[in-house]
Amino acid sequence: MNIRSNPDNTRPAVTTGSLPASRKIFATPEAAPDLRVPLREIILSEGAGEPNLPVYDTSGPYTDPAVTIDVNAGLPRNRLAWVKERGGVEEYQGRDIKPEDNGNVGAAHAAKAFTAHHKPLRGLDGHKITQLEFARAGIITKEMIYVAERENLGRKQQLERAEAALADGESFGASVPAFITPEFVRSEIARGRAIIPSNINHAELEPMIIGRNFLTKINANIGNSAVTSSVEEEVDKMVWAIRWGADTVMDLSTGRNIHTTREWILRNSPVPIGTVPIYQALEKCDGDPVKLTWELYKDTLIEQCEQGVDYFTIHAGVRLPYIHLTANRVTGIVSRGGSIMAKWCLAHHKESFLYTHFDEICDLMRKYDVSFSLGDGLRPGSIADANDRAQFAELETLGELTKIAWDKGCQVMIEGPGHVPMHKIKINMDKQLKECGEAPFYTLGPLTTDIAPGYDHITSGIGAAMIGWFGCAMLCYVTPKEHLGLPDRNDVKTGVITYKIAAHAADLAKGHPAAQLRDDALSRARFDFRWQDQFNLGLDPDTAKNFHDETLPKEAHKVAHFCSMCGPKFCSMKITQDVRDYAATLNDKEQGMAQMSAKFREMGENVYLDADKVKESNRVF
Amino acid sequence: MNIRSNPDNTRPAVTTGSLPASRKIFATPEAAPDLRVPLREIILSEGAGEPNLPVYDTSGPYTDPAVTIDVNAGLPRNRLAWVKERGGVEEYQGRDIKPEDNGNVGAAHAAKAFTAHHKPLRGLDGHKITQLEFARAGIITKEMIYVAERENLGRKQQLERAEAALADGESFGASVPAFITPEFVRSEIARGRAIIPSNINHAELEPMIIGRNFLTKINANIGNSAVTSSVEEEVDKMVWAIRWGADTVMDLSTGRNIHTTREWILRNSPVPIGTVPIYQALEKCDGDPVKLTWELYKDTLIEQCEQGVDYFTIHAGVRLPYIHLTANRVTGIVSRGGSIMAKWCLAHHKESFLYTHFDEICDLMRKYDVSFSLGDGLRPGSIADANDRAQFAELETLGELTKIAWDKGCQVMIEGPGHVPMHKIKINMDKQLKECGEAPFYTLGPLTTDIAPGYDHITSGIGAAMIGWFGCAMLCYVTPKEHLGLPDRNDVKTGVITYKIAAHAADLAKGHPAAQLRDDALSRARFDFRWQDQFNLGLDPDTAKNFHDETLPKEAHKVAHFCSMCGPKFCSMKITQDVRDYAATLNDKEQGMAQMSAKFREMGENVYLDADKVKESNRVF
Repeated sequence: MNIRSNPDNTRPAVTTGSLPASRKIFATPEAAPDLRVPLREIILSEGAGEPNLPVYDTSGPYTDPAVTIDVNAGLPRNRLAWVKERGGVEEYQGRDIKPEDNGNVGAAHAAKAFTAHHKPLRGLDGHKITQLEFARAGIITKEMIYVAERENLGRKQQLERAEAALADGESFGASVPAFITPEFVRSEIARGRAIIPSNINHAELEPMIIGRNFLTKINANIGNSAVTSSVEEEVDKMVWAIRWGADTVMDLSTGRNIHTTREWILRNSPVPIGTVPIYQALEKCDGDPVKLTWELYKDTLIEQCEQGVDYFTIHAGVRLPYIHLTANRVTGIVSRGGSIMAKWCLAHHKESFLYTHFDEICDLMRKYDVSFSLGDGLRPGSIADANDRAQFAELETLGELTKIAWDKGCQVMIEGPGHVPMHKIKINMDKQLKECGEAPFYTLGPLTTDIAPGYDHITSGIGAAMIGWFGCAMLCYVTPKEHLGLPDRNDVKTGVITYKIAAHAADLAKGHPAAQLRDDALSRARFDFRWQDQFNLGLDPDTAKNFHDETLPKEAHKVAHFCSMCGPKFCSMKITQDVRDYAATLNDKEQGMAQMSAKFREMGENVYLDADKVKESNRVF
Repeated sequence: MNIRSNPDNTRPAVTTGSLPASRKIFATPEAAPDLRVPLREIILSEGAGEPNLPVYDTSGPYTDPAVTIDVNAGLPRNRLAWVKERGGVEEYQGRDIKPEDNGNVGAAHAAKAFTAHHKPLRGLDGHKITQLEFARAGIITKEMIYVAERENLGRKQQLERAEAALADGESFGASVPAFITPEFVRSEIARGRAIIPSNINHAELEPMIIGRNFLTKINANIGNSAVTSSVEEEVDKMVWAIRWGADTVMDLSTGRNIHTTREWILRNSPVPIGTVPIYQALEKCDGDPVKLTWELYKDTLIEQCEQGVDYFTIHAGVRLPYIHLTANRVTGIVSRGGSIMAKWCLAHHKESFLYTHFDEICDLMRKYDVSFSLGDGLRPGSIADANDRAQFAELETLGELTKIAWDKGCQVMIEGPGHVPMHKIKINMDKQLKECGEAPFYTLGPLTTDIAPGYDHITSGIGAAMIGWFGCAMLCYVTPKEHLGLPDRNDVKTGVITYKIAAHAADLAKGHPAAQLRDDALSRARFDFRWQDQFNLGLDPDTAKNFHDETLPKEAHKVAHFCSMCGPKFCSMKITQDVRDYAATLNDKEQGMAQMSAKFREMGENVYLDADKVKESNRVF
């Protein structure tokens, strides 16, 4: 079921098919019965004694056996109708693709163009276009209904069945409701506390929401560079990243073929795509930051708005007066976008054009409902530089810009660091909430130490889990290759799984009402020795199964009531049934206990006889 | 330099040789010039412009080119003289090895015995034997002097050179001094806040200290099981674990050859070895917990005391009245030792013999200075069971037992969970400090979610970093194989590196005065494009280098002033020199700035010309 399909031998090949023991199901929201909201149902073994578990599904049509994937044609453009039916948009010819859009690549190195061309839409003056504008007007869009259904994970029935109160977390002032309604989604968007990144030209999108009162999300970065990689690899990585749970994907391509790569990715992506437009703008002026102009940058924004990019990282907070604050840092300015703008400001001795033209940028992005991801160009690049004046000065400016963008009707999230030791993480989160009016925070890690190149998914997974708990809405993954090279397919998967762990640990600690259902289902499977269920309920069933099989490869062992840690002679799990029997006698006092202890003595050597009884007693539903 | 030596073709083979760019150096404490305290010096590249970095070294003689390793003979027994010279001990014949000590293994499956036999020592009545007894009497032992020197990492000179105050952490009430003195070590041991696990019969030991005011330590579990593994593999794993930074190793062997395996490990281990004696006792009664007796257990303790085990996990807090508290758990009792004792208590309807004979256990362990690791037999095995009444009832009893052991002169640490969501971790730590009078806490993870079998080094690395920050003194590693199988060599390394990350992140956040020196040295190397230094200063130079070479394999690229992320045309690092030049003009105001911006414009396309200048300006020493 895990096939890298390449049916007609044309590139790119991508991975399709279900995850192990999984079935794609669709929920139909009451408020919009024409919507089909995907979930993945994990199918438990026959004797599990509890229902299958529905989980959030980011993988799009690639895991739907009912859909024939044709990467050359792109995904179905279902969302086009939603945008058109609410009006206020016009189809138009759009900007012509110029040679510089692909870095003036020669014919020999040009990537194959994506065949289909869709004329772009843009908003008309005087009409509502963005999700923020609709939300403020009290209008619930299909996107809002879709994400409300999606966030609930079919958990209503499950929560009703579970006896214990599951949510006992510490949310640090977040307000996660028991059930997400479309109206709640609308109200969170209206107050700027959540966004649905959804360019009107990204019709292939399955909408998702980013905000601290929703499930914690993760982003995976992909993209070729001037040194390595190809279009094919990047499309494959995107599909691979969402298979394992990436909620959004950023295309950080540099070098040549940048427009074409992005087109292939967008047309095949069911998740929001983010970019850093200054990267492409820089390629258009031969990589020399000094030659950048507002006109060149604006033209790049239009190009990407028309393609359907859902959010733009814009480093408008890197202001001329802040740049000297980085002079004594150990690692100066490490954000690529930040250093491009710093270079420009210094060379021209002028305020950043991103800052001076911020109003115009808002007006442009609003027409397509491209969300802002206000970039942290002055983020720390080392433990030594964390939470310094440069970082916080920029963050204060991002707060100012958030308000401007909101006034213009644009959706906004805020990017954050980077490298931060554990004791400085909450200070970061709290300052962001305060300065930026609770606009969603979107951080890279943060890495909690600098001493482990090759393991920065782990140094940063620690920080990501913590900042997610403290209120961060989306965690940008870090792969094992961070600081060393570009991630390959395996690195992408490792990064995604690590960040799914961080995001889920954060949801648990915040007291997200549905989060613990999966932990509990897996723990019951583990305790019942339902090995296959344990594998399948995990984030990476393939790896779990392979690890188990390294020690006990025989098929029979996967139903065995023991594991390689204790071996077949003794099992701590079995003792539990004795404990339960014993606890039951406590009311009968001495007589019952004496009988039970005689029984337990007798059972001493035969701890497996009653394995089924253990299993039975573990059933909660 | 990384050789799995097997010189005369006799097993076991172990890995010897230095880590990359590393040299073993020895510090000589003023208070005891005959001691040689090992450090690893990381040798920086010629143009680094800063001194080599000394780091803590757990690897023992295996990385010392001056020592010829002969696993069949064992390590030099240097510590024997320290023990003998302070007196109060006698050499005696010791207990004979019995067939049951190795599970009555037949000749066909018997492991090769360790050749050399050393008569055991034991303490004489009326004399001080344990580090705690010496400390209370105001006597500073060689072990205390050794660990004081070891904890300082040669950092005095470095801290004097560093301009900034490095320690700005939040220590939650810990009191980490700027420099560790032997007297500080003594006082911490005297008040029970730290231990030096150091059986008088483990003469191969290089002493180390466990306590919240010292560097956070990590433990690696090894051991064969009834199902898999061999003596050879376990000795190899021990050497491999300490090579990457394990501060102590627990031998959790079960099945046959358990005595012989332990002998091989002890005679070749420079780090403290811990065991769970009930595992071996269980093997001696055919795996049937009901047949366990105090006499059998006591005999096993003597056997292991004489061999030189440094600390024993003893689950004396699993009391009969607590067992029914686990009846409604999702995962019951998951500690192997805990469930063995629960089974025994229920079968006999009696209080645990570990609890009723606790005084005698103390008297026995005191004679050899074996430290207690009071086991958490009722630790939670799932998120659902965290911080429940069963766990806390046991913890309260562990506090009671701590005071008894202290009164008897024994060193004590306390074991902790397990599976705990992030918001419940600090509650655990705070309760342990309160109940157990600040005795060192030693936790397994904790895992912050149950949903990622195959990645539990990461789910638990998050919790380990946090509880280390909050005050946990030693972190027991979890490998990727947790819940699935026994760790192999690669898993051991992954577990150790992950936990070194967690421990170091904790030290940074606590404000340990020397911790940030390594982060800063690595960050400077990174920023200067000193690739080799970046690799070598990391926890795993081999992996970092391999990852880098996957993208940019050419040797020349390791001195290149660019990386695969940005490519050769543009580099954010270079911008920093511009920023510094600009900052320097701020005093001269407009004229200087105009000149500088003209210069930056000119330099636009040639960002690499001044790479040496960037490097120069990064030198802090």
